Amino acid sequence: MVYYPYILIGVRKMDLLYGNAVVGQSGGPTSAINATLAGVIRGMKENLSQGQIKTLYGMRNGVEGLMREQLLDLGKAFDTEEKLQLLEHTPAAALGSCRKKLPNPTEDETFYENLISIFRKYDIRYFFYIGGNDSMDTVAKLSAYTKAHDYEMRILGIPKTIDNDLVGTDHTPGFGSAAKFVAVTVQEIIRDCAVYQIPAVTIVEIMGRDAGWLTAASAIGRVVNGIEPDLVYLPERVFDMQRFYADVRAALKRHPNVVIAVSEGVRFADGHYVGEGTQTGAVDVFGHAYLAGTGKALEMALKAEIGCKVRSVELNLPQRCSAHVASGVDLAESVTVGKHAIKAAGEGISGHMMLFERVSDEPYRVEVKHSDVSVIANRIRKVDDAFICASGNHVTDACCYYLLPLIQGEAGSIYENGLPKHLIL
Amino acid sequence: MVYYPYILIGVRKMDLLYGNAVVGQSGGPTSAINATLAGVIRGMKENLSQGQIKTLYGMRNGVEGLMREQLLDLGKAFDTEEKLQLLEHTPAAALGSCRKKLPNPTEDETFYENLISIFRKYDIRYFFYIGGNDSMDTVAKLSAYTKAHDYEMRILGIPKTIDNDLVGTDHTPGFGSAAKFVAVTVQEIIRDCAVYQIPAVTIVEIMGRDAGWLTAASAIGRVVNGIEPDLVYLPERVFDMQRFYADVRAALKRHPNVVIAVSEGVRFADGHYVGEGTQTGAVDVFGHAYLAGTGKALEMALKAEIGCKVRSVELNLPQRCSAHVASGVDLAESVTVGKHAIKAAGEGISGHMMLFERVSDEPYRVEVKHSDVSVIANRIRKVDDAFICASGNHVTDACCYYLLPLIQGEAGSIYENGLPKHLIL
Repeated sequence: MVYYPYILIGVRKMDLLYGNAVVGQSGGPTSAINATLAGVIRGMKENLSQGQIKTLYGMRNGVEGLMREQLLDLGKAFDTEEKLQLLEHTPAAALGSCRKKLPNPTEDETFYENLISIFRKYDIRYFFYIGGNDSMDTVAKLSAYTKAHDYEMRILGIPKTIDNDLVGTDHTPGFGSAAKFVAVTVQEIIRDCAVYQIPAVTIVEIMGRDAGWLTAASAIGRVVNGIEPDLVYLPERVFDMQRFYADVRAALKRHPNVVIAVSEGVRFADGHYVGEGTQTGAVDVFGHAYLAGTGKALEMALKAEIGCKVRSVELNLPQRCSAHVASGVDLAESVTVGKHAIKAAGEGISGHMMLFERVSDEPYRVEVKHSDVSVIANRIRKVDDAFICASGNHVTDACCYYLLPLIQGEAGSIYENGLPKHLIL
Repeated sequence: MVYYPYILIGVRKMDLLYGNAVVGQSGGPTSAINATLAGVIRGMKENLSQGQIKTLYGMRNGVEGLMREQLLDLGKAFDTEEKLQLLEHTPAAALGSCRKKLPNPTEDETFYENLISIFRKYDIRYFFYIGGNDSMDTVAKLSAYTKAHDYEMRILGIPKTIDNDLVGTDHTPGFGSAAKFVAVTVQEIIRDCAVYQIPAVTIVEIMGRDAGWLTAASAIGRVVNGIEPDLVYLPERVFDMQRFYADVRAALKRHPNVVIAVSEGVRFADGHYVGEGTQTGAVDVFGHAYLAGTGKALEMALKAEIGCKVRSVELNLPQRCSAHVASGVDLAESVTVGKHAIKAAGEGISGHMMLFERVSDEPYRVEVKHSDVSVIANRIRKVDDAFICASGNHVTDACCYYLLPLIQGEAGSIYENGLPKHLIL
């Protein structure tokens, strides 16, 4: 991990590279990925590259659009402060996204040769890719290829994912907003569930296939107002049906309205997803195989086992696109990391991913740094052991305190006639 | 329908009735039902009953708590403006709710005799019930019984339902906030769906068993920014599977990202719910019968028929409890209607439901009135024919313009440490 302002400026500042830049968005959308794009544009407009970058192009639908030369002059497209602010409050990827994983250069060199010829055609010397794990893989491969083939280029990854599962960074841009949506919505669901006196279990299914960060965010209320789900299950722990029944029975003895947060990615000891329970054999009257999901599978199992009222709520897409309840901290950090990427590239950094290092908890303070992307890509950061209760059915206070700063501040969406205003390119 | 300030004050103002009052919340929660409760308390504190009401009690869990004499002195509980404001921004029913439907007096007179003895014990002469259709039935029955048995009382219903399906009122308190949640969330989902270029269908399932008002709200964006779902299906029209397939195929020809809003209550010509498609015969590997829901049933059917990527999102509980994105207009009107109920009761009105009459569209303006509850209870207000397109797969501009004023203004939630603050009694 390199802290560039002091160490690197001295080494590289003579090493100027003039040319154009291209920025793309990739992978699943978040509420803050456009804020990062706005940060990159702001960094360009504020000339943080010290005049090295001339034109900043946006690639439509990530590298797929780049291959088709679908490029947009972002300096021209964002010619007013108002447009940049709108972009910062627009969910999903304004440039469009893709899920393309780059081939290995040894398998498909033509792909890379085509890319380089497009880079030459548009004099592109700077490449910024905003995305998750697959995008960092793209950055690593492209970085290695251009270096090996003597095409001088500065290539930087800028993280985003609601899953918070990238290694090397305190947290990922986009996660705080998704965490805030989950925390706020679970608080509201708990209020909703409290109105009746008959025993009832409500299961809230939260995104996170491999890491339980977002599910853990359902419990942040504990350190704010004492209100949290009764039980929280993360994919980091084996899910045991009998222990689950026992947990729920114990919770129902404490009070009638039990609320459970469960990650979509929880698995049984044999490695099968809990949600797979309904994937095998189940067919509807149309004769179609049925895929239920984790919450629904647990709902059905609990109904049969305990017999009380059970319902499940899958938070689904709104987790990653509810920009109206985005975290102010997340949006601001997402802009900042975009600006810093322009600065770092101007200072000669390449093949790195931008990241946050938390330098203080109280007051919360992070520094933007960067690190070699090849040691980051294709790895998954799980929820720390210290953040999960020994019983495996809840998170610790330390987890809540880690998460709390990330959901601070309100989105400040721009409303027009009752609806949030979005920017559409 | 009676416009009380001019007609009734003159008739009844001599007819003073001194005593205590009780207020309860009943039926499913909404984001605004507590705002109405706050309005009733404000009406009491502002002495809109002209000194006739001494103490205002809250009944815990509606008439069920009343029967157990679980009463709370609301004047004492809400002794600060801050608490009232918090109540107005707290979703669900702060007093608790119930789903009790009162027996017919001819079948169970003991029930009513017990009630009257509790009224006598606490000197209760005013009864306010905030709720939906079943609550208006309670008001009608109690009103008829007390009148027939010479217990002088003033009984008023105050509507609330996210379904907007009560007759006699322009709209129901609570609906605007749910409509705003739906409109905002569908706009965000449409953004999320727009990022990829591969053909994909996203089905959003929206609450509304018998009336499609809330589903219609998904299309409000049309008259704000031109963004709306491609197709909107309401329970007011027979759902035909073949026509649905044809609609989706046509939409996919126009653009790759098709978004569909569908009411949970859509039915086939034979009267069966579309969601029932998966209720018969389908079992999971635990051997449990499976109930899917409308969106999931359509997702599976589309996958089999068209074969493209299909997913479904059930908006579920957040529709009725997402107070953080409540409509400012709805919250303000909900407070107002509560205050007016105290005023109307003070003027001698009984056996009526409070209601809104829209007196102007531009600028939007409603007057609070009231009408005999016996002609309102147990009826369902469907979406007007003029609000549904001839093709039956979308709503008209007139529908959007009817809905638009109801989602104006932002909630103004009170945040503490990143989370909305709720009042818990």
